[in-house]
Amino acid sequence: MHAVTDPTFEHGIAILGGTGDQGLGLAMRFAKAGRPVVIGSRQLDRAETAAKEVVAAVPDANVSGCENPQACPRARVVILSVPFEHTAATLKSIRETLVSDQIVVSMGVPLATSVGGGPDQMIDVWQGSCAEMVASLLPAGVQVASAFQNVPAHRLRELDQPVECDVVVSGAKRAREDVMALCGLVPGIRAVDGGPLDNARIVESMSALLIGMSRRYRVSSGIGIRFTGLPKTAC
Amino acid sequence: MHAVTDPTFEHGIAILGGTGDQGLGLAMRFAKAGRPVVIGSRQLDRAETAAKEVVAAVPDANVSGCENPQACPRARVVILSVPFEHTAATLKSIRETLVSDQIVVSMGVPLATSVGGGPDQMIDVWQGSCAEMVASLLPAGVQVASAFQNVPAHRLRELDQPVECDVVVSGAKRAREDVMALCGLVPGIRAVDGGPLDNARIVESMSALLIGMSRRYRVSSGIGIRFTGLPKTAC
Repeated sequence: MHAVTDPTFEHGIAILGGTGDQGLGLAMRFAKAGRPVVIGSRQLDRAETAAKEVVAAVPDANVSGCENPQACPRARVVILSVPFEHTAATLKSIRETLVSDQIVVSMGVPLATSVGGGPDQMIDVWQGSCAEMVASLLPAGVQVASAFQNVPAHRLRELDQPVECDVVVSGAKRAREDVMALCGLVPGIRAVDGGPLDNARIVESMSALLIGMSRRYRVSSGIGIRFTGLPKTAC
Repeated sequence: MHAVTDPTFEHGIAILGGTGDQGLGLAMRFAKAGRPVVIGSRQLDRAETAAKEVVAAVPDANVSGCENPQACPRARVVILSVPFEHTAATLKSIRETLVSDQIVVSMGVPLATSVGGGPDQMIDVWQGSCAEMVASLLPAGVQVASAFQNVPAHRLRELDQPVECDVVVSGAKRAREDVMALCGLVPGIRAVDGGPLDNARIVESMSALLIGMSRRYRVSSGIGIRFTGLPKTAC
């Protein structure tokens, strides 16, 4: 593990796969909240194009684009926003760059699309969930949290509207609390304590249910979730 | 399959395991909506005691208690509200009484409590979910739907308050639509089209997540779910 020297590291947020709809939406939201954002991609030009899209939406954004392995040393929080089938390859490409201070956030969902099936069905992952698979592939000391799976991309991109979604954050206590604090940066997102990482099994599968529901009700902007009965202090 | 002669059959709702917290709450709500309710139990005296509790809460209730096999011929909709580990035995005791007009509603959740584990963890069911197991054990022609898993018992019992929960209803089209219509009888419950029965795998597991969440946030009255972004016509 190498030393971290980037001045943005402490507050920086790297979004690998930040060129996709949901990752780009998160990038815009975090940039709008004043956080330094680094968009990672396998291809430099796609990352740079996405960074320009963020600036177009958020003119004073502190954002840049680079290849995935270069993105990680610039941010304490690394959000994995790649399709499930690219998760393991992405982690292999970055694992040498990670340091024990960092938190990797899994937002992947093992949808059946990864093996040619439908987006409203799941495949079984040996470790139990995408998040637990991510944990199994990371160097010791790197923290893992699971979050953001159920936030529709469309709502993230409507920057003048609150997102109106609860985000269930699972993982070990410190990582969980840090990611819950990040949720507070996005208007309309409420973080909910999702307990240990293995609860990602449930949270990830909820995405397949929401996708099926969006299709049945023809809601192109996506369907979100709110929990009722939580104490006010949960916000 | 024998002929149905009970005059309450068409509008009747049988709740097997209606002596438990959640079943009794549903019995009170449906009785309050004016539906004939039959509470089933393995023990006649417990069923009768539960029926008296319903009358105490809803003085003009049309409610009675009887053993499970006697309850089914009196209601077109039979709600299974027994602990998961009693599901198969209950079905065996009633299957000869069921007719092809009937709809069996699975609200069971394969919590790990059924094998001595915690209520915030699940066990795997060979068929995929409790609802699919129920379907596999029923005579041909009997319809199956999955619903009501995520409604906290406490909220059902507070009869002067709306329940404030969405209920995901899964199953074949006709059964699904009929059970969605039932949801409309309970103030604050909104039925959401959950698609085919195998989606019960996801909906059931959400109960374990909600139970864990209730513990972490110390919410004794339970946590419910609302979906955001559904069209108004979904209500």
